[in-house]
Amino acid sequence: MPIEAVLDTAQKISSMEIRGAGKIGRAAAAALKAAAEKSKARDANALLTELEEAGRILIAARPTAVSLPNAVRFVLSRLRAATSQEVGELRKAAVEAAGEFVQNSLSAVERIGEIGAKRFSDGDVVLTHCNSMAVNAVLRTAWRSGKRFEVYVTESRPRYQGHITARQLAEEGIPVTMIVDSAVRYIMKDVDKVIVGADSIAANGAAVNKIGTAQIALIAREARALFFVAAESYKFHPETLLGSLVEIEERDAREVADPGEFEGVKIRNPAFDVTPPEYIDLIITEKGIIPPQAAIMVIREEFGWALSSNRR
Amino acid sequence: MPIEAVLDTAQKISSMEIRGAGKIGRAAAAALKAAAEKSKARDANALLTELEEAGRILIAARPTAVSLPNAVRFVLSRLRAATSQEVGELRKAAVEAAGEFVQNSLSAVERIGEIGAKRFSDGDVVLTHCNSMAVNAVLRTAWRSGKRFEVYVTESRPRYQGHITARQLAEEGIPVTMIVDSAVRYIMKDVDKVIVGADSIAANGAAVNKIGTAQIALIAREARALFFVAAESYKFHPETLLGSLVEIEERDAREVADPGEFEGVKIRNPAFDVTPPEYIDLIITEKGIIPPQAAIMVIREEFGWALSSNRR
Amino acid sequence: MPIEAVLDTAQKISSMEIRGAGKIGRAAAAALKAAAEKSKARDANALLTELEEAGRILIAARPTAVSLPNAVRFVLSRLRAATSQEVGELRKAAVEAAGEFVQNSLSAVERIGEIGAKRFSDGDVVLTHCNSMAVNAVLRTAWRSGKRFEVYVTESRPRYQGHITARQLAEEGIPVTMIVDSAVRYIMKDVDKVIVGADSIAANGAAVNKIGTAQIALIAREARALFFVAAESYKFHPETLLGSLVEIEERDAREVADPGEFEGVKIRNPAFDVTPPEYIDLIITEKGIIPPQAAIMVIREEFGWALSSNRR
Amino acid sequence: MPIEAVLDTAQKISSMEIRGAGKIGRAAAAALKAAAEKSKARDANALLTELEEAGRILIAARPTAVSLPNAVRFVLSRLRAATSQEVGELRKAAVEAAGEFVQNSLSAVERIGEIGAKRFSDGDVVLTHCNSMAVNAVLRTAWRSGKRFEVYVTESRPRYQGHITARQLAEEGIPVTMIVDSAVRYIMKDVDKVIVGADSIAANGAAVNKIGTAQIALIAREARALFFVAAESYKFHPETLLGSLVEIEERDAREVADPGEFEGVKIRNPAFDVTPPEYIDLIITEKGIIPPQAAIMVIREEFGWALSSNRR
Amino acid sequence: MPIEAVLDTAQKISSMEIRGAGKIGRAAAAALKAAAEKSKARDANALLTELEEAGRILIAARPTAVSLPNAVRFVLSRLRAATSQEVGELRKAAVEAAGEFVQNSLSAVERIGEIGAKRFSDGDVVLTHCNSMAVNAVLRTAWRSGKRFEVYVTESRPRYQGHITARQLAEEGIPVTMIVDSAVRYIMKDVDKVIVGADSIAANGAAVNKIGTAQIALIAREARALFFVAAESYKFHPETLLGSLVEIEERDAREVADPGEFEGVKIRNPAFDVTPPEYIDLIITEKGIIPPQAAIMVIREEFGWALSSNRR
Amino acid sequence: MPIEAVLDTAQKISSMEIRGAGKIGRAAAAALKAAAEKSKARDANALLTELEEAGRILIAARPTAVSLPNAVRFVLSRLRAATSQEVGELRKAAVEAAGEFVQNSLSAVERIGEIGAKRFSDGDVVLTHCNSMAVNAVLRTAWRSGKRFEVYVTESRPRYQGHITARQLAEEGIPVTMIVDSAVRYIMKDVDKVIVGADSIAANGAAVNKIGTAQIALIAREARALFFVAAESYKFHPETLLGSLVEIEERDAREVADPGEFEGVKIRNPAFDVTPPEYIDLIITEKGIIPPQAAIMVIREEFGWALSSNRR
Repeated sequence: MPIEAVLDTAQKISSMEIRGAGKIGRAAAAALKAAAEKSKARDANALLTELEEAGRILIAARPTAVSLPNAVRFVLSRLRAATSQEVGELRKAAVEAAGEFVQNSLSAVERIGEIGAKRFSDGDVVLTHCNSMAVNAVLRTAWRSGKRFEVYVTESRPRYQGHITARQLAEEGIPVTMIVDSAVRYIMKDVDKVIVGADSIAANGAAVNKIGTAQIALIAREARALFFVAAESYKFHPETLLGSLVEIEERDAREVADPGEFEGVKIRNPAFDVTPPEYIDLIITEKGIIPPQAAIMVIREEFGWALSSNRR
Repeated sequence: MPIEAVLDTAQKISSMEIRGAGKIGRAAAAALKAAAEKSKARDANALLTELEEAGRILIAARPTAVSLPNAVRFVLSRLRAATSQEVGELRKAAVEAAGEFVQNSLSAVERIGEIGAKRFSDGDVVLTHCNSMAVNAVLRTAWRSGKRFEVYVTESRPRYQGHITARQLAEEGIPVTMIVDSAVRYIMKDVDKVIVGADSIAANGAAVNKIGTAQIALIAREARALFFVAAESYKFHPETLLGSLVEIEERDAREVADPGEFEGVKIRNPAFDVTPPEYIDLIITEKGIIPPQAAIMVIREEFGWALSSNRR
Repeated sequence: MPIEAVLDTAQKISSMEIRGAGKIGRAAAAALKAAAEKSKARDANALLTELEEAGRILIAARPTAVSLPNAVRFVLSRLRAATSQEVGELRKAAVEAAGEFVQNSLSAVERIGEIGAKRFSDGDVVLTHCNSMAVNAVLRTAWRSGKRFEVYVTESRPRYQGHITARQLAEEGIPVTMIVDSAVRYIMKDVDKVIVGADSIAANGAAVNKIGTAQIALIAREARALFFVAAESYKFHPETLLGSLVEIEERDAREVADPGEFEGVKIRNPAFDVTPPEYIDLIITEKGIIPPQAAIMVIREEFGWALSSNRR
Repeated sequence: MPIEAVLDTAQKISSMEIRGAGKIGRAAAAALKAAAEKSKARDANALLTELEEAGRILIAARPTAVSLPNAVRFVLSRLRAATSQEVGELRKAAVEAAGEFVQNSLSAVERIGEIGAKRFSDGDVVLTHCNSMAVNAVLRTAWRSGKRFEVYVTESRPRYQGHITARQLAEEGIPVTMIVDSAVRYIMKDVDKVIVGADSIAANGAAVNKIGTAQIALIAREARALFFVAAESYKFHPETLLGSLVEIEERDAREVADPGEFEGVKIRNPAFDVTPPEYIDLIITEKGIIPPQAAIMVIREEFGWALSSNRR
Repeated sequence: MPIEAVLDTAQKISSMEIRGAGKIGRAAAAALKAAAEKSKARDANALLTELEEAGRILIAARPTAVSLPNAVRFVLSRLRAATSQEVGELRKAAVEAAGEFVQNSLSAVERIGEIGAKRFSDGDVVLTHCNSMAVNAVLRTAWRSGKRFEVYVTESRPRYQGHITARQLAEEGIPVTMIVDSAVRYIMKDVDKVIVGADSIAANGAAVNKIGTAQIALIAREARALFFVAAESYKFHPETLLGSLVEIEERDAREVADPGEFEGVKIRNPAFDVTPPEYIDLIITEKGIIPPQAAIMVIREEFGWALSSNRR
Repeated sequence: MPIEAVLDTAQKISSMEIRGAGKIGRAAAAALKAAAEKSKARDANALLTELEEAGRILIAARPTAVSLPNAVRFVLSRLRAATSQEVGELRKAAVEAAGEFVQNSLSAVERIGEIGAKRFSDGDVVLTHCNSMAVNAVLRTAWRSGKRFEVYVTESRPRYQGHITARQLAEEGIPVTMIVDSAVRYIMKDVDKVIVGADSIAANGAAVNKIGTAQIALIAREARALFFVAAESYKFHPETLLGSLVEIEERDAREVADPGEFEGVKIRNPAFDVTPPEYIDLIITEKGIIPPQAAIMVIREEFGWALSSNRR
């Protein structure tokens, strides 16, 4: 029987109280850790069954966030691979695996910051979209290392996450200019490098990210500005290797406008879009900088080929 | 000495009480008409001098709206070409020319509606941006002729003119869907035709229009959706033939966000952008449908080559 | 009351006994000539009315062949412009105009041959599609002037008009190689120049021609082979200036395969496609070689702007 | 001395009685199996020598079908790697390896069907070319899973394999429309996804397939329709890693037209063309979906780098 | 019998003592003027015949310089159009026409300077290639009007005309940086605008200019830098309208390297290349700024359509 | 204390007496070998410390040549991995590793020649730039195997290394034509394949090579000529995986022109440029032919992911 921590975490993810791909993954791992610690299972099989059930509950809370199943997979695969059949050992393995996931996740952002920062130079004009911890880590690390550049931030309708980014960068002292999303091509002729985060990276290197990202990538390509995606490796999406499409969530129309004021007008609010790999120059991961075509290499190292896995 | 009507009109254009390229042009013509009617000039030369002064005042009210100098030029060139040197005749010519400009302008939009409507078919998915009388005329004429299509409208930040367009089309009964400006590429795969208005058409066929237009044109080109510009011929910009660049107005940052809430953040608000001719399939004018490369033909017919005009 | 010659010609055009854009136009002119000669009209107005009725009948015989209304328009506009109101004079004018159209049409192909031939050089590898009198004139003139090149001919499914072209060029002694339509990209890397005819040229320079032409143009562009269209000026389509789309005829499925052998399978047989102007390097007309963007110049010289014509 | 089964199979492959990349590979494996079973070799070395000779004979039967050497390589590499030097053990290993190849091949198509089917959605308009078991598996699996889409099939001159595909899909109940090969661009604006098979995949991800495939890929790219290749992993071509070019077979001109009717006309009939990787979105293999740039990864896992193999 | 001035000028053009398209044209006009002044012809016909012969001699001196036949054509067409048949009148007309050509040519460069200068702004980074009077006029006028920009100059192998340009601009005080021709793409990311001259403009808007120009245009397009061509209207090439190709002169190998030091090595030295119109944003003429597609308009205004000219 | 051989080699590399990526790497390995042989270290640790110091000195001699640190890394990593702690064993390991690096390097070029030669065919027109041992090996091997093709060589300003290449190929009997760097686009329409060497290959497959390479790649892409890079695997740059940018050396202006003759003119002389992977068809390494996107695979096999190595 799943314990309170799991249900509580699932609820918070579902209601978006916990949000952001990294935070969701870490919360799931933490919930599994709590579940393992408080489990009353008497044997290894029972514990595994309990944690698998907990994993299913957590995953169902927000099915499109790939960091969520990846966190669960990370912990459970460690248990399934455990040679010991002693319940105490298994519990310990679960706790350790969950801790390791959290630790990896936290250090991955920092490592991306270090690696990505090398790609920026004095005098660069940078553009970013929406709000991404990994992007901020890259820009902050570069700035603190003494590089001097300026950053354009889109307001990122409909939820204005660009406002958050603008403030965070300004607090670092980085010169920031904010524009509406429609002004991207207007200023792109002055931009050297675009950097965005990602919610998910598909096997072909496509990046799923906040609505508007794909058209910014296209505009960057037209102007031959470089386009970077910063993404921790647990955002890579193994099922896409097997043909699954990443689903694009459409959210509440009221984020865009009050439908009551627009009689006869439908309002659509797609939350993400897919940037094709040919518009991405590099993906900055904590493992190194890769071209988008190497995304499949990252996925394969973690999950193997389709045929070797009967379970999917 | 310029009469009240001229000063009053100039003030209203300057303060944007009168706005929209067509309305501005018609208001300028009307002001010249009033100036001619009420002039106390005793001979032709004096009248011409007065009206030239009135023209200068009007043009200075909003220098980047090309319909404004075009209206003035239309009236004054008629006077300069007049063979009679009798002041009454000249006054009559001015009044008639001004009336003709207003009439032409009013009928041009209607005619664009008729011509452009032929380019739309049952089942079309259309996208438009901002709010344009000429575009609405096209879509309305097509709809009333029995064609059945649907229209996507961008909200058109920062001033949300897309809200107006959405309501106007919905009132006609046209199925309308509104999206944020960032969602254009997301829905472009379903779009057959994009149609926008223009504030100015340059000699090379480039279209100056509301910020965001150029990136929509790029996105349409990527998806091979057709991209139409609807523009009356008095929006064609003769000075560009002689090398002048169309200036892009940057407006008040407060249209984008309250600067007080964004310490250390600069906010830029460019109001227009320039869509290059290679992204435009057709320009729909009241004279017919032309490829953007024929813009220079329209300009030349109205204003001749550079060398034939000593005055510029 | 229309005389027999008109009805007879209309029937032959309708049944495709008379076909090919040039032949159709000349037949229509000849029918109008006969109608004028045999008319019993007693005054100019009556004669004009009769010929206008004859024109309507002819045009209705195959509405999409632009050479047909252009031939009729050529003759009738001459009558309408005639200053004399004497019926004999008018009859003579009609006969002369019709003869002139036929003569122009015949010499246009020859002139295109002379002009176009200059664009071919020793060693050229040429590709053509379908069967065009104008293209053959170009290649024949170049060959007879002593230039030595070779030609690839597509078979041009479904009606195999490429078979005719292959034989016609081989009779001249030109080295010809025939391929299936699917092999165009395979051999394009060796091709220097593609030349095709056209059924119609739109105001934006797009060429309507035999199905398959547009993809050959795309393949040529990819390989940076030059793409020429040979078209007499009466194939330019004035209504497209006013927004009309050139309709694409879909023909009988039995040209493709016997539907009886394909239960549950639909067969579509579009006869033409539209090559966009950006894939056309030059249009060879009897007036000279023009870039596709100058198509509108040709149309305007013949038909003027939309506004100057109240009749449409 | 090679036994009858080997000679017989080689003859059937050579005469194209056995054809299709999958069938050829399986037939070669079966022949090796028979050769191993009936061998009278007294020691391991003799058996290996016999089977290597059989392999050479089989490969020579149709050198360009990469599934053929791949099947032989699969069986022989197993024998060479065998640690036992006992002839009975080796025979058993050969029989098992051959059986495994056949089994893998049969299940690969089915697996591709499952994986690929996930990429199709309700409402999709699909285009395919020629006739491919793997493509049919994908479309059939998608259709049987309840997805509802329609398919365009090219007739695929000169041998009209599209007729077979059209009938096979129609038998499933899938709505099928057949067109001539020249009409691909005409209908591409309505197509969402193109899927074709392959005879060979090169190390750089290029796909060798039926003539016409490469231009369809180009047309799809122009319209931004997705382009998928379905290919079992034994169609990947290891020698291309070492620089070999995939040779393109030119077949009998009589498949195109009767040369006797075309005096002075040469007829060429290339059977395949090469689609460059930049026009391929995804390759669907039984191991998963990969971008074309990962083809080298598949090849390397099977065959290793050039340096590690002294034998080639 | 042609007088000395004609033979002398022809010789100097032929030996390249007189070079540069403008200078050649003006020298030819001056020679015709001298020929008219010193002619002993007793009647109009004789004078015309003499001057036509002089024209032929001049044109033959360097057939590919279009300014040369254009200068001759300018003068002779004026004579042919003259209504008077009196020899004194005709002589006077010839002298005036020649003077007018020279005057027009001299003022055209200045006028191009004025018009083109408007297209440059403070902060621009400009690139130019080879050495062009018109380009220098543009940059000089812009600089003297107070605009502050910097210019990259290629060395322009094999004859290093870039050295001349670099010195000329540096003398004006313009900041100049010189690079090898191979470094163009390296610095293009910093360049806003490229401006070059032209030896000839074809009817389709293609520009014939110093070898290397076409690849600079391609590199500019890739980086979306603007590409301008500055060309007086007498450099527009009327024969290209009728199909003629502009011939590309290949010059002495010794300009590239000493062939004696390169046994077995062929050295080619093409002097010009052709920049296609799709890589040219604007052509700056003394008549105004035109898109390359309007080149045909300029040619037609000067020379009419092919059909109206029986002489060619 | 570093011995003489190390200091001497470092000095020769620094002064460019030793140059060329392969030669530099081999010289560094040889210097380490000498250092190991002559070391007086008494224990393993002391020897390792000495050789690490020698490595640092060598690397500092020319930091941007990636073959230099790669050679040092190759030798030192072998020592660090050595299990024995006996100084004699370690010395022997160092000597062997250095010898192996030299041997690998020498055979890599030969192997690239063999592999790359397969990609060339009779009748090919080839272009190369600058002077590369690997390219010469490919062309020489192809020529000696009986293939007959011709080669264009750019002169490769500013140092004219193309002169060397032209002579070397001519000595083989290969037909060679030399052109200025500006003539590349002019002759590209006749070129089938471009092949160049590389100084460094980045993790994303970009090739750093002699200035001018990147624009040749762009021109090849425009004309759809194939673009090959020949590069030994020790030219792959592991640090780029971790974000480092390859620095582009700018060399002495006097290589371009005598600054004394150009008052007020700055001369820039960038020595290399970066060809983006999308313009590279294949990289020919001694391990096989790879698409540029597989460069990361080569790097990873040699150096592993970032996270697994704490030392960098």
